[in-house]
Amino acid sequence: MAIASIEKMITQLARLPGVGRKTAQRYAFFLLGVPEEQALELADAIIGARKSVHPCPVCGTYTDLEKCEICADPKRTDAVICVVGDPRDVMAMEKTREFTGRYHVLNGSLSPMNGIGPADLKINELMQRCEGGTVKEVILATNPDVEGEATAAYIAKLLKAKGVTATRIAHGVPIGGNLEYTDEVTLAKALEGRRVL
Amino acid sequence: MAIASIEKMITQLARLPGVGRKTAQRYAFFLLGVPEEQALELADAIIGARKSVHPCPVCGTYTDLEKCEICADPKRTDAVICVVGDPRDVMAMEKTREFTGRYHVLNGSLSPMNGIGPADLKINELMQRCEGGTVKEVILATNPDVEGEATAAYIAKLLKAKGVTATRIAHGVPIGGNLEYTDEVTLAKALEGRRVL
Repeated sequence: MAIASIEKMITQLARLPGVGRKTAQRYAFFLLGVPEEQALELADAIIGARKSVHPCPVCGTYTDLEKCEICADPKRTDAVICVVGDPRDVMAMEKTREFTGRYHVLNGSLSPMNGIGPADLKINELMQRCEGGTVKEVILATNPDVEGEATAAYIAKLLKAKGVTATRIAHGVPIGGNLEYTDEVTLAKALEGRRVL
Repeated sequence: MAIASIEKMITQLARLPGVGRKTAQRYAFFLLGVPEEQALELADAIIGARKSVHPCPVCGTYTDLEKCEICADPKRTDAVICVVGDPRDVMAMEKTREFTGRYHVLNGSLSPMNGIGPADLKINELMQRCEGGTVKEVILATNPDVEGEATAAYIAKLLKAKGVTATRIAHGVPIGGNLEYTDEVTLAKALEGRRVL
């Protein structure tokens, strides 16, 4: 009863993040049950995105243009670069509508345990962008986990040697959060980063 | 920052069962981040499955052959047909390795609330297969829910008029289950269906 092409579809769907074999089976039979156009639309959307989307050669975020819209926007300032780990983080930052500088995507975090060193990230490219004195501040917006903190510290050291100000996004209690349920490390960071009102 | 082809991929992924926009975004960015071959392999697997897999013209289960392996197997008996709602149920039944008859997939259950009547299911096709006196027993293995029970009762009535024995799979306490946590309807059915040891 095992049909090779269904098996193949299940195997491929099970490679999606957080998808096990049972969920992959559910998706596969769903895709067999819907009108053929709908299943092909999904396949075409994947192919279309992979053919047209690529990392921006300047900042590394996803784009379907030669240079991404943010890098191409003349109204944004070149004096500030926000450094993130992943293209998704650029979208998250953009949603705040608070940042008007440029971005730089590292494509990961330093992680010696997983064999990811500085050469595996776009750190050299960032340093090249900081040449020439145009960039005054680099905001390190890597993830607030061990790897992200280590990556931020590493880059801050390199920037200091270049005379560029490195800043780190604030750690603290999230808006809408609850003190009682906030972990002690976050609370300690919130205390440490307190500001005069 | 909205890139049309990424948006399209997210929209299509969000049509998968149980997948919301957030999960679809996660899948989409995963598919953008993996090597291009891997993303295209998934797309190709979907296209391949849809091009090669179709319902068996006899029983309605999925097959990539002219007639499914079960219908084509000369070692199986034509005297018993097991009626299920969905091609997935055929696979579930086959896993038991207990059934050596044929199958018939209804493609759903009667559901007047959703406008699904007898003409929307493969009930006429089942009745045609029961002509000629070869089929002695039809096992109604539709789902043990309201729609499945109603569908089984409806088909049983039609079969009785034809002189074919209709049986229903047993309801009861599942193996590995716990009496304390079994709902009262299932327990009542288990009592009702008790057998002499």
